[in-house]
Amino acid sequence: MADTVEIVFQPSGRRGRTLAGTTLLAAAQELGVGIEAVCGGKGVCGKCRVIVEEGRFEKLGIASSRGHVSALSPVEEKFFSREELERGYRLACLAQVNADLVVTVPEESRTAKQVILEQGKTRAYSLNPAVKQYSLTIEPAALDDARDDRQRLLDALAQVYGLENLTVDYTVLRDLPQVLRQQDWQVTVTVWQEQEVIRVVPGRDAAPSLGIAIDIGTTTLAAFLCDLTTGELLGRASRMNPEIGYGEDVLARISYAMSNEDGRDKLQQVMLKAISELAAEMTAKIGRKPLEVDEIVLVYNTAMHHFTLGLEPKFMGRSPFVPAVSAPLDIKARDLGIAINPAANIHSLPVEAGFVGPDNVAVLLAEEPYKSDKVKLIIDIGTNGEIDLGNKDRLLSTSCATGPALEGAQIAFGMRAAAGAIERVEIDAETKEPRYKVIGQETWYPELKFTGAQGICGSGIIDVVAALYTAGIISKAGRINGRLETPRVRKDENGRLEYVLAWAEETAIHKDITIKQGDIRAVQLAKGAIYTGAKYLMEKYGIEQVEEVILAGAFGSYINKQSALTLGLFPDCDLDNVKAVGNAAGDGARIALLDIDKRREAASVARQVEFVETAVEPDFQTRFMDALAIPHAKDSFPHLT
Amino acid sequence: MADTVEIVFQPSGRRGRTLAGTTLLAAAQELGVGIEAVCGGKGVCGKCRVIVEEGRFEKLGIASSRGHVSALSPVEEKFFSREELERGYRLACLAQVNADLVVTVPEESRTAKQVILEQGKTRAYSLNPAVKQYSLTIEPAALDDARDDRQRLLDALAQVYGLENLTVDYTVLRDLPQVLRQQDWQVTVTVWQEQEVIRVVPGRDAAPSLGIAIDIGTTTLAAFLCDLTTGELLGRASRMNPEIGYGEDVLARISYAMSNEDGRDKLQQVMLKAISELAAEMTAKIGRKPLEVDEIVLVYNTAMHHFTLGLEPKFMGRSPFVPAVSAPLDIKARDLGIAINPAANIHSLPVEAGFVGPDNVAVLLAEEPYKSDKVKLIIDIGTNGEIDLGNKDRLLSTSCATGPALEGAQIAFGMRAAAGAIERVEIDAETKEPRYKVIGQETWYPELKFTGAQGICGSGIIDVVAALYTAGIISKAGRINGRLETPRVRKDENGRLEYVLAWAEETAIHKDITIKQGDIRAVQLAKGAIYTGAKYLMEKYGIEQVEEVILAGAFGSYINKQSALTLGLFPDCDLDNVKAVGNAAGDGARIALLDIDKRREAASVARQVEFVETAVEPDFQTRFMDALAIPHAKDSFPHLT
Repeated sequence: MADTVEIVFQPSGRRGRTLAGTTLLAAAQELGVGIEAVCGGKGVCGKCRVIVEEGRFEKLGIASSRGHVSALSPVEEKFFSREELERGYRLACLAQVNADLVVTVPEESRTAKQVILEQGKTRAYSLNPAVKQYSLTIEPAALDDARDDRQRLLDALAQVYGLENLTVDYTVLRDLPQVLRQQDWQVTVTVWQEQEVIRVVPGRDAAPSLGIAIDIGTTTLAAFLCDLTTGELLGRASRMNPEIGYGEDVLARISYAMSNEDGRDKLQQVMLKAISELAAEMTAKIGRKPLEVDEIVLVYNTAMHHFTLGLEPKFMGRSPFVPAVSAPLDIKARDLGIAINPAANIHSLPVEAGFVGPDNVAVLLAEEPYKSDKVKLIIDIGTNGEIDLGNKDRLLSTSCATGPALEGAQIAFGMRAAAGAIERVEIDAETKEPRYKVIGQETWYPELKFTGAQGICGSGIIDVVAALYTAGIISKAGRINGRLETPRVRKDENGRLEYVLAWAEETAIHKDITIKQGDIRAVQLAKGAIYTGAKYLMEKYGIEQVEEVILAGAFGSYINKQSALTLGLFPDCDLDNVKAVGNAAGDGARIALLDIDKRREAASVARQVEFVETAVEPDFQTRFMDALAIPHAKDSFPHLT
Repeated sequence: MADTVEIVFQPSGRRGRTLAGTTLLAAAQELGVGIEAVCGGKGVCGKCRVIVEEGRFEKLGIASSRGHVSALSPVEEKFFSREELERGYRLACLAQVNADLVVTVPEESRTAKQVILEQGKTRAYSLNPAVKQYSLTIEPAALDDARDDRQRLLDALAQVYGLENLTVDYTVLRDLPQVLRQQDWQVTVTVWQEQEVIRVVPGRDAAPSLGIAIDIGTTTLAAFLCDLTTGELLGRASRMNPEIGYGEDVLARISYAMSNEDGRDKLQQVMLKAISELAAEMTAKIGRKPLEVDEIVLVYNTAMHHFTLGLEPKFMGRSPFVPAVSAPLDIKARDLGIAINPAANIHSLPVEAGFVGPDNVAVLLAEEPYKSDKVKLIIDIGTNGEIDLGNKDRLLSTSCATGPALEGAQIAFGMRAAAGAIERVEIDAETKEPRYKVIGQETWYPELKFTGAQGICGSGIIDVVAALYTAGIISKAGRINGRLETPRVRKDENGRLEYVLAWAEETAIHKDITIKQGDIRAVQLAKGAIYTGAKYLMEKYGIEQVEEVILAGAFGSYINKQSALTLGLFPDCDLDNVKAVGNAAGDGARIALLDIDKRREAASVARQVEFVETAVEPDFQTRFMDALAIPHAKDSFPHLT
């Protein structure tokens, strides 16, 4: 190992050893980290921009330094600004690793741009946005009419549209005089909640107001750009949650915020920057400007809610788990420094309780179990899972720390649902040979020889663990059977058993893609947490069987329901009554953006839902441990069977 | 003149020629510009900080450059930061002038700190501020009480004080969790208008809320710091209006704002910075923090209102003279970037019409003519004069461009009312010899031989012009009689007549202090404008005689009423019925700060006052020209006599 060095790629966390002198691009390819390299690594295209980090990374157990890479080449100097060079930017195809290194691959250099999946469900909602536009022709100023410009505007709004007692945001006042006069006293006025003028532009036929709904997941942000006058979806964008650099899960981030003086500010600033960038990216794609965005609706779990709004998260993270704010909030974009119309409001849906946040309220808005006769079990699968159970009579909620395994993170060859990800797996019970399908390929392996697989995403992980169980490769306890006669089961470099899902020659990463014992354990923990939470809710509600199971989450649309049931991800239910509805939280955010009545409904629902804190139940640990078995051990809920 | 150079000191505008090689301090002393020099010019104290300006000053007809002074000395390098050196900072006692120069003397280096005069009048007003404080003990969070921190606070305010439906400013929410817990759930809460929580601090016995009232004059800012729980005046501060660098009068500043792309921003930014500095200075003096200032009330004329709030002033400055906003405004301190409590509101009193701004509303609030039986004439003397006439039945207002002469500016030896200023003048009709009194000296000249006079302030100017007239030295038309046998009347370097008020040996500036023909003309224009405006109002109102004349303005307290009447500053009135009430606008701002009912009164008064636009009257020019005579030519209003 004398001339190998350790390298870690962020934010994916992929790590491994490589020969000193290897280029960063080659090292990334060895480890299956996708970096753009349009010119094929010739130092011409400048796409393979990476950042060499400086410092000791305690959590990773590695020290990184810009001295650990080869000297800056003249070619690279041309590609970067002085600030970028100071930040540690390099071209991955030219910089060579000489000693241990942490390298960040910025969003723009990643090949596998994340795909946020459209929901499978069509939802009907009425169009009644908080923000509306009004065309006006205003009486020109004259010597015998001493009204000021603001009054003139308000009088016209009252006269033509019956809008009384409006206020005008300060930022609108600044340029009002010339805006009114620019097109001969014809203007288009944006009004928020029939209360406040938030934008005035010259001309009666101004472009329609834009609104954005964002689902801020612990791991992923999904944003939707809408025309607020038609409700039309004009675009969408997604990216990794930029706070991942400060902790994979919310507890790590709370701890980061508490143990660093500017920790809370940092968490907030990276998020607000990402939101501004999403707004800029989506508006640019349709030839519009971020300043034309007149409202944003945000949904997130309670921790992400606190981080995004800069609220002290310390006390939310410890008993009695009290959030700083539960109520819905409207905060001016300029107060958060989000680069849209500065007078626009950022609307935050209400928190239910503890970690059950606005995102779950959004799921409820989208699914409306509170209007249903049937008792529904709604499972929103994400790094933080939320579970709802009930109908129009009563509604219970709980949260569970699922972990990111089901999103493909913290899995040896895990990746997000993007081209190259193995998304479907079957295993022959006799031969123990797999069939699998990769996103972007129509044909399955082994019909397709070279699949170009780069890793395995959430739905593939659920499939493979379920398939390993039904094929008899793993036990009920999740242990890999090492005595099977198949080359697919072998020991890894640490002497631990693993199952080879794809051989190196089939893949784009030129490495065997394997499922490790630890991966199986992570899936068990995730599904055990969800199952236990669901069972507690059923017990509290007093039912033994749910009539409908709804799997929400971008990921939810893609999982094989049979595999999920096999694993015991949710309590027994006729598979016909199990529905995957996609990103219901994102849908709920869009609904709240487009229909203000739904916000009132949200506030009322948030108050009505009964929150169940499962972690304080005395038998929680026992039940959770039992629920790790595949499928779940029914006898852990003896009174239900 | 080969080895003399021209030098202009800003913001006073004093200019003259001096020998090349003279230090800036010596040049300033020659020209009567007061610069602090505690160590006596030895380069030790570092007090004589001045700024050498760079560029061509068209209006002054002079080009200035840092190359026009001696090289930077090592001593100076020690006294200044890099930014200051880049800005052109020098020590006046060490830097020598080598070529034409414009030098700015910053506020902190001026010896004659401006004195804002306390009003002569005691005004009673009730204490009912917009901002109030409430002490609370809040129920601690517990597992069986899921309320969030914000709700817990609001519930306690409702329960203990009956304050319902409050909102909480976003900036308060950020740290609310730790603030509530820091002193065991005991807090002091600041609430604005019984509507919004704007500050929460730990402990039930927090220091009282602070409020600031500021009268923003065209030339001078006067600020008052108040305890909002007792109404007590805790401090005051004043400074030059920082926009003077962009134009002496409001029309010049409007033109600056219009002809420079960032002109409007610059005018606003210097003002907001000055306001922040005033807040910092006054709070520091009493050991408090600007963050404890929970409200500011601003009064100003309409132009300063637009500049301060960053509103487009273009259309206010041209017919039909429509302001962007007339209504009273509450703008968050953070939206203006004023460094006090970011959730505090900056309250702006309403504009009446055209140039009759919130400052006149403040004067009316202080004087309450609308509650009076008597018909009062109120003259607010400043660079922009406002005149009100009326009683409880009817109230008229107008504005007039007085110019800064009555504040001591644009007068050859003019200065502000500070130590060293000649404030009283009498002239013997026989000998033509003057008697005069200097601020800071008890004894008059000639009883006092060395008076240390540095210049003449507003009240002195009114006195001297009236005295010149009664002593027969100037004619009714204001012309100096050159045929008198007195050494006091002589020709200046331009061959124009002047009257020597003080000989060089009596003064601190070692130069004769003279009254020039141009000075007399400036006073005539000022008094003519005021007189004409007042007469028009009387005509519109239909009265020939006013029952009471009220002279407002910091300056108003100090003028000799007889001199003012002699000059014809206001229409004939029994001198017993002429009252000087000091800075009524500042008093009105304080009243509005301390009593919210007065703001409602202000809004109603602003709507009721009838604005009279005198400049559009067909005979305005004739009347104005007639009114320049000393005393005013009565026959210009033939139908009144």
